[in-house]
Amino acid sequence: MKEAFDIVIFGGGGDLALRKLVPALYRAFRDGQLPAGTRIFTSCRSAEEVAGYHDKAALALQQYLRPEEFSVEVWAEFQTLLQSLLLDISKLDNHWQSLREIMDQEADKTRIFYLSIPPTIFGVCCKHLSEAQLITPKSRLVVEKPLGYNASSAEAINTEIASYFDEKSIYRVDHYLGKETVQNLMALRFTNIIFGQMWDAKYIDHVQISISETVGLEGRSGFYNEAGALRDMVQNHLLQLLCLVAMESPNKMNSKNIQEEKIKVLQALRPMTGDDVAKNTVRGQYVAGSYHGDLLPGYLEELNCSESKTETFVALRVHVDNWRWAQVPFYLRTGKRMKARCAEIIIQFKDVAHRVYEDAAGPLTANRLVIRLQPEESIQLTMMTKNMETMEMELQPATLNLNFSDTYKRFNSDAYKRLILDAAEDNSSLFIHRDEVTSAWQWIDPIIEAWEKTGDTPHLYRAGTWGPDESDQLLASEGRYWFNAGEEKKIES
Amino acid sequence: MKEAFDIVIFGGGGDLALRKLVPALYRAFRDGQLPAGTRIFTSCRSAEEVAGYHDKAALALQQYLRPEEFSVEVWAEFQTLLQSLLLDISKLDNHWQSLREIMDQEADKTRIFYLSIPPTIFGVCCKHLSEAQLITPKSRLVVEKPLGYNASSAEAINTEIASYFDEKSIYRVDHYLGKETVQNLMALRFTNIIFGQMWDAKYIDHVQISISETVGLEGRSGFYNEAGALRDMVQNHLLQLLCLVAMESPNKMNSKNIQEEKIKVLQALRPMTGDDVAKNTVRGQYVAGSYHGDLLPGYLEELNCSESKTETFVALRVHVDNWRWAQVPFYLRTGKRMKARCAEIIIQFKDVAHRVYEDAAGPLTANRLVIRLQPEESIQLTMMTKNMETMEMELQPATLNLNFSDTYKRFNSDAYKRLILDAAEDNSSLFIHRDEVTSAWQWIDPIIEAWEKTGDTPHLYRAGTWGPDESDQLLASEGRYWFNAGEEKKIES
Repeated sequence: MKEAFDIVIFGGGGDLALRKLVPALYRAFRDGQLPAGTRIFTSCRSAEEVAGYHDKAALALQQYLRPEEFSVEVWAEFQTLLQSLLLDISKLDNHWQSLREIMDQEADKTRIFYLSIPPTIFGVCCKHLSEAQLITPKSRLVVEKPLGYNASSAEAINTEIASYFDEKSIYRVDHYLGKETVQNLMALRFTNIIFGQMWDAKYIDHVQISISETVGLEGRSGFYNEAGALRDMVQNHLLQLLCLVAMESPNKMNSKNIQEEKIKVLQALRPMTGDDVAKNTVRGQYVAGSYHGDLLPGYLEELNCSESKTETFVALRVHVDNWRWAQVPFYLRTGKRMKARCAEIIIQFKDVAHRVYEDAAGPLTANRLVIRLQPEESIQLTMMTKNMETMEMELQPATLNLNFSDTYKRFNSDAYKRLILDAAEDNSSLFIHRDEVTSAWQWIDPIIEAWEKTGDTPHLYRAGTWGPDESDQLLASEGRYWFNAGEEKKIES
Repeated sequence: MKEAFDIVIFGGGGDLALRKLVPALYRAFRDGQLPAGTRIFTSCRSAEEVAGYHDKAALALQQYLRPEEFSVEVWAEFQTLLQSLLLDISKLDNHWQSLREIMDQEADKTRIFYLSIPPTIFGVCCKHLSEAQLITPKSRLVVEKPLGYNASSAEAINTEIASYFDEKSIYRVDHYLGKETVQNLMALRFTNIIFGQMWDAKYIDHVQISISETVGLEGRSGFYNEAGALRDMVQNHLLQLLCLVAMESPNKMNSKNIQEEKIKVLQALRPMTGDDVAKNTVRGQYVAGSYHGDLLPGYLEELNCSESKTETFVALRVHVDNWRWAQVPFYLRTGKRMKARCAEIIIQFKDVAHRVYEDAAGPLTANRLVIRLQPEESIQLTMMTKNMETMEMELQPATLNLNFSDTYKRFNSDAYKRLILDAAEDNSSLFIHRDEVTSAWQWIDPIIEAWEKTGDTPHLYRAGTWGPDESDQLLASEGRYWFNAGEEKKIES
């Protein structure tokens, strides 16, 4: 059995804690994955919040778990592990001392300090942890995006937390990496000869990585309007997924090797400046539209503002300049208020070298591997087969499905559960190294600078669509098109 | 719409005609695939047989079709196409003249003469067809195994029929090739880059082709005891399937190119003589055993004979001596009274070059493509995935299924239907060229000679098993094992 640990969630009453972290810990407990003796502390800003925390947590569980997951009996046990504490992060008062006393009762345990708070107070929180002598050799710090606004601000945050924690004790979360399917992507690549051998420019035509959201601003308007889609989604999630698709095989699947390979990919991204940016990126901003018949406001209406150049959509053509990926474009795309909610990685293989069947046999579709992370997790491989309903040799694409909820009856993916337990077990292979953050920003910054310099204005798209026409043009100019979730098209031969 | 044709089934009252040919034509008619005006003639040996033929055919349809396939209404229409004729094949009497008169009423139609009779009377039948002036430029001859007993007897049969029909008008049936899945095997190989590129010695570890029967002699004792499994099954069916797996890509998928490629494979089979035969073949003969709890007699009991050296089982290690298949063994196996009825082609890919996961991650199974022709038709691809039920990175094989009856709702494979309609449409790509028969026998003959010379005696195996232990040894000596239908094993890493 694994060792018991203590976890302190700073910002325990916040959205992330209640929607994701507490439910993840509940699931871990229910699944017998929380070692006996594990303690969960949540920091609250007022005595009232402390007093009402268990009720609030129970309510959140009922709201964010699936109905069949919540049980009164499990909750009754789980809540005995959960302790809410009054703590003003910005003030080193005696509440920090109380926390120390409680934790020092079991001083040898692994300690996880989960900063579910704004990055602006990461520094002071770490400082107080340090001054209250809470940081033991077995302490780990977990932080989440946004890690900065550009390379220098990210560097500042990372430097600040580095005064209190070693790099190897810092766990930077990207929750997309916590999805089981991401692990499966690596398993597919590195344990199957049919993918391992074909994973390069010789056999792959291009890669698409899309994260489309149907939601709009969701109350994040101030932050989002400053950031935009490139900073909010591409710098972290999309580039991380790109790294996992593009990286060379690590010698061994351990954290160090994986992080090194990812850094190599980020450093191989072809820099974009000036004209390259105009040629290889498309920004969009939604205007009023509709989703399943419901009218939706435009971005400016949601923002309640008469002007904004912030992109709520971005599409990019990216090249990884190394032997493996020479000439293979990676198309990245993300946006809000799009037609469907979906996160997908598509590996489009090349067409066969020669057509042995006459044209009458029907058009060919090249092999395609679709790794879906959202809304459900699945892997599909599209292959050509003979249409079995016709006497004639008519070719037709068929799909081999690896739908995890069918194959694995107990499959129940919770990215945060995995990531918290990984942190407790000192497995940082799904977390992000400081150098990855830096390298990613170093590639992102010049793009934003170019947009600013040229005064680039986002193309408008209707809410509830797949983004501006220019996004389709980005691929069409090279004879390709986006695979939009739920909209199958055939490639004509 | 295709053109109407006439088909004459010689031996219309025989087992093949009633079990396979008439049902196939019924299905073609029901499916609207028999062009209007098509006529079916069946030859019978007595006036009584002629008089009772429609009743007998109706009975056969009810027996050999699936219950839902037979309908009184369809039969009422179908039987109007079906005409039974009195004909003594060995005697050129006026009944041949009657046949000519009937056929000449529609002299321009394609004529198919289907010889559902013993090969010993192929010659006389062709002679009488010729002398009765029934052979028009649009006439085709369909013949089935056994085409000879060795190279010279096969040559004699082929020479005899060649006096009356051009090679391009002769359609040699191997009903395994009529299965839809065989066409799909070719589609998979030649229209999917992921298979097309990996279909060689660099990526494939070995190939297994098994046809296992659960039945025993089924009244064919005289013939079978003379022939044995090698002549009865390997010379034709197993080598044909091997050809389709092993052949180079034809320039175009037409009959001529496919047949040429198959001949090249047969000519590349590494000859076996003397010691090679002992080393690479295993013969077996069943003794009493049981199947699903029922006691089964042994071969000698079924034969009602005290001695026989005939093999009812044979396993072979075969090499195709060309660049593509250097060092890749093809294991062929067929037998009667085996544990399960199954016809399968298994492409076992090689293991990945390097293990990036630690041993704890579980054993690896290399990719495997399973093409099943019997009892149902399906294609499966086994891949490694992460076990989604465990937090730990535990690898587990998962199967991507292409089960045709799921994918294609109207899938209803009837090999004979396809082959008859192909013959009517002058498409001989799934039929066997004379040179294939010859080449196959030339490879088979020395094996039989070696067995005879050394007085090789079959190893005994219990009815209802997978054959003699020596068959397992044949693979075990190279660190491999047979994949037995319904018995999944994991390869330990």
